[in-house]
Formats: sequence, structure tokens, C-alpha cells
Amino acid sequence: MKIGTLAVVGTGLIGGSFARALRAADAVDRVIGFDRDPDARRAAVQLGVVDEAPEALAAIAQADFVLVATPVRAIESVLAGIAPHLRPGAVVTDTGSTKQDVVAAAARALGPLRARFVPGHPIAGREESGVAASIAVLYRGAKVVLSPQPGTDADALATVTSAWQSTGAKVVEMDAAAHDRVFAAVSHLPHLLAFALVSEIAGRADADRLLGFAAGGFRDFTRIASSSPEMWRDIALQNRAALLEEIDRYAARLASYRDLVDRGDAAGLEAMMAAARAARDEWLKRYEAARSPE
Amino acid sequence: MKIGTLAVVGTGLIGGSFARALRAADAVDRVIGFDRDPDARRAAVQLGVVDEAPEALAAIAQADFVLVATPVRAIESVLAGIAPHLRPGAVVTDTGSTKQDVVAAAARALGPLRARFVPGHPIAGREESGVAASIAVLYRGAKVVLSPQPGTDADALATVTSAWQSTGAKVVEMDAAAHDRVFAAVSHLPHLLAFALVSEIAGRADADRLLGFAAGGFRDFTRIASSSPEMWRDIALQNRAALLEEIDRYAARLASYRDLVDRGDAAGLEAMMAAARAARDEWLKRYEAARSPE
Repeated sequence: MKIGTLAVVGTGLIGGSFARALRAADAVDRVIGFDRDPDARRAAVQLGVVDEAPEALAAIAQADFVLVATPVRAIESVLAGIAPHLRPGAVVTDTGSTKQDVVAAAARALGPLRARFVPGHPIAGREESGVAASIAVLYRGAKVVLSPQPGTDADALATVTSAWQSTGAKVVEMDAAAHDRVFAAVSHLPHLLAFALVSEIAGRADADRLLGFAAGGFRDFTRIASSSPEMWRDIALQNRAALLEEIDRYAARLASYRDLVDRGDAAGLEAMMAAARAARDEWLKRYEAARSPE
Repeated sequence: MKIGTLAVVGTGLIGGSFARALRAADAVDRVIGFDRDPDARRAAVQLGVVDEAPEALAAIAQADFVLVATPVRAIESVLAGIAPHLRPGAVVTDTGSTKQDVVAAAARALGPLRARFVPGHPIAGREESGVAASIAVLYRGAKVVLSPQPGTDADALATVTSAWQSTGAKVVEMDAAAHDRVFAAVSHLPHLLAFALVSEIAGRADADRLLGFAAGGFRDFTRIASSSPEMWRDIALQNRAALLEEIDRYAARLASYRDLVDRGDAAGLEAMMAAARAARDEWLKRYEAARSPE
């Protein structure tokens, strides 16, 4: 299945890598890019990631396939902006890290056109951001979650699935609510926990001395606290209910660790730590096997 | 200052790397190694890390300098075991991750000989453990905390300081109680937090599904949950009071993040996350500069 004209709205790392991957797979004829930042538009053209980068969103009328790869809180206004211009039969998808809010935004912004919209979330990223960091292999071996709704057109889902598969990604369908619960647990919560540790230590009067002795373990544990505050503020608030539940579960688990330390329960503490290590080692083996080239 | 005979008790990664570093710096004439594991003794000799690996601790009488590099809970029995055999004037130090408990153990096990004991803690490690993973450059650029006591002999402190400096480490003196507070915050707490996250997620009925979507952020955040459960159980319990205080401070900070999410306070959440990111980025710059070769 080859796309005629692909429009990427938000020509950053995620959108740029999608365009590069489809080009590399010869799965697209032409790519147009949209970005509110003129520098990002210019860079996308200069790097050959897109063929053209029109300023006005009306040019979306040329597209057969639209990927909305903006920050999650901008998705609703982008969808509202493109709705009047969409070519009949065009397919639209997004890359937002939360899905229930995007489903609701699409219903408001697209009206009946929402049947052509397939909510999506690629599980991939890099330290660097921006179109200059985009690479054709970003999605190779990565999972992409699609959350089609009861009213989603089957051909729209098939088109989006096929496009992601041609990037080398593995497509998984999941209910939007289930998606949000899963990512609250394995992604949104860890980010909040890492931010909270740095906040706690950096906020003390003796922060300089404390941080002077932080080493490799601290570095890796807090790596995700160097993520974008705007992006993670938005994700935390868009996925508020699921995240609050995860924070509460985590706080209860931390309290049970605290209790073991307080009571000096060596056997209980070792058993809980050993089970965690075994689970993590087992997970890592599977994760690395799935990511390695076949 | 050159050591005649160095004895390393516990010929693992830490002790083995110390011996290799002193040899590489031509700061020692002869190294003898002790380990309760016969395979570790054999490997230490075969790899040339030590010249000899006697089975009986009585051979410690040959040593001018003793490094106790065993798990922290074994330090007291090692000190009690070597005390009757120590050559007059010999210097003893350790590598334990907690210091107040080691100071108390030394008082009990060494009696008046404790004047020759300098409590120490090198801030270095690798993923791998055991003497086969030992390298001469492990301590280059790393910090080593020494916690001399009021009764510690000045020449013993000078000898241990000089030995660590010859490995390329930076020696910092710090009160044992201050040491334990600092490492509870920047090391022991993060380990417990990482173990707790994996425990929480791996313990659920839908753990397989959740972990199936965990990715790079989860991997780095939980790396330290693949550490030794025995070692971290011991550290948590040996540094119990300071760790409990850190858990409580962290839980309070997490509650304040929770409150911002609950109230939908976008500005407050972004401000706290942005301050954390700035502090972490600034720390990382300094950390990497200190670790890079001059």
C-alpha cells in the first residue's frame, strides 16, 4: 500500500522520522510538512525530510494521509484547523502519548470526519529532539499502539496500520482507556518519580554537597527528569485520573518497603528486592531481544 | 609512599580493582588476597591481581596495609578475625557503603587497634561484579570518602589517603553520620525507589501486558533494581535511620506532585519539573566534567 501525498503536521523528531522511514521503504510518493516554527519548516525542506513546507494549513487538502505529530495539547486545535480542508477519503492519525483525551478531542474537532481518524502512539524516542534528530530507523522494532473507536472506518485503520508496519514497527491495537492505564504505570509514573527525586534533593540547603556525591546510579535513575517539562506537564494532566491511581499504588508499595526497613525485616526486604530484580532481568531480556535486528 | 605488602580481604570487583590500580601506579611491592570463596582466590591469582591467596586469615600478619572489601555486613567479623594477627603499625581500611555502622563495628572488633583503622567508601562500580571484572582505572576521577574518627592515627589516615590518590581517586573527608545522610539521599533512596516501582508493576495480574509496553525510560529508571538484593538489603538496614528519613521526605515531595496533578495546576507542575530538569542538567555537566580525563 503506497501513500500518494503524506502530510506531517509538526516536523520534529517523531514526524520527521516517520516521513524518513516511509521514504526509505518507498511507501510514499510525496511529503509535505507543516510546523508553526518557520525554522523547523526550513530545516525539514533542507534536510530532504519533506518536499515542501507550506505555511497555510489549507494545503492539507493535497494530502491522502495526515500524521499529526505535535505536542499532545495542540492536537485538538490542529484537528479543528485541518477539518475544513481535508480531501474526501483522507486518513488522519496522531502520535500523542495519551489517547482518551485525543479521542475526545477528535470527536469535538472532526465531527463526522472522525471516522477517518485513527488514534495512535508510537513507543519510540531519542534524547535529542527536532527534525535534525530524525532518523529513518527510529521505529524499527518499536511498538505502535492504535486505538480505533467503534466508528472508525476499517480502511482507515488498515491504511494507518500498513504505514506504521512499513517503518518496521509492530502495531498493537488497544482500547484508549487501557492504553492510558498501561502508560500511566510504565511511563508517566516513572517520569514523575524521577522529577520528584531531583526536586527533593535539589531543593535542599545542602543540595550542592548532596549532588557532589551523586554518581552513575543517580544519573540513570534521573535521566528522564531531563525530559521536556512542558511535554510531561501536559501528559500528566491529560492522563490525570490514571496517573493519580498509579501514584497512590506506588505510594502504598513504597510504604510497605518503608515498613520492612523500619521493622528490620531482612528476609522480607531481600525477598521483595529479589523478586523485583528477577522480574526486571526477565523483562530486560525480552525487551532487548525484541529490539535487536532479526 | 609505597606499600610493602597489601592485603585485600574480599577479592571481588572493588578489592581487585584497588590492587590492580596500586600495581599500575607502582605503589605496592606485593599483594596477598583473601576470600572465603576458593574460586575467587584462584581467579585472583590466575589473573595476576594478587601474588598469593592464602586460605587462613593468620597470613594477614604479612600485611602493612589491609583493605577490607567484603559485603558491609561481613566487615565486623573480618575485623575481629584479623585483629589478633595484625602486624604492629599496620593500617586497615574498608570500602563499605555505610559508615556509622562500620565505625561501631570497628570499635567492637578492634579495641585499641581501631586507631589504625580508617573507615572509607569509594564511589565507584561497574555492572559486572567479581575479580574478573576488576580494572586498574575503576577509581580514576572517582570520589573516595574517608571518615576518620577522633582517635584515628594521623599517619594511618595519611597512608590510606595516599594509597587512594595513587589510584587516581579524589579523597574527601567526611563525618560518618554526614556520609550516611548524603548517601541515603543520593544512592540508597533511589535504589529503594527503583526496586519499589518494579515490585509494584511486576506484582500485578496484568504485569505481562504492562511490561510489554515498558521502554527505554523504564529501562534506565530501573537499572539499579538489577543490583544485588543481598547487598541492598544490608545497606538499607545498616543505614536504617537516615534511609527512613529520606523515604519520608520523598513521600512528602511525591504528595506535593500528586496535589499539583490532582488540582490541574499546570503552571505549578511545569515550574517544579522545570526546576528539577535545570538542576539535573547542571549536575550532569559537572559530573561528566569531573569524570572525563584531564
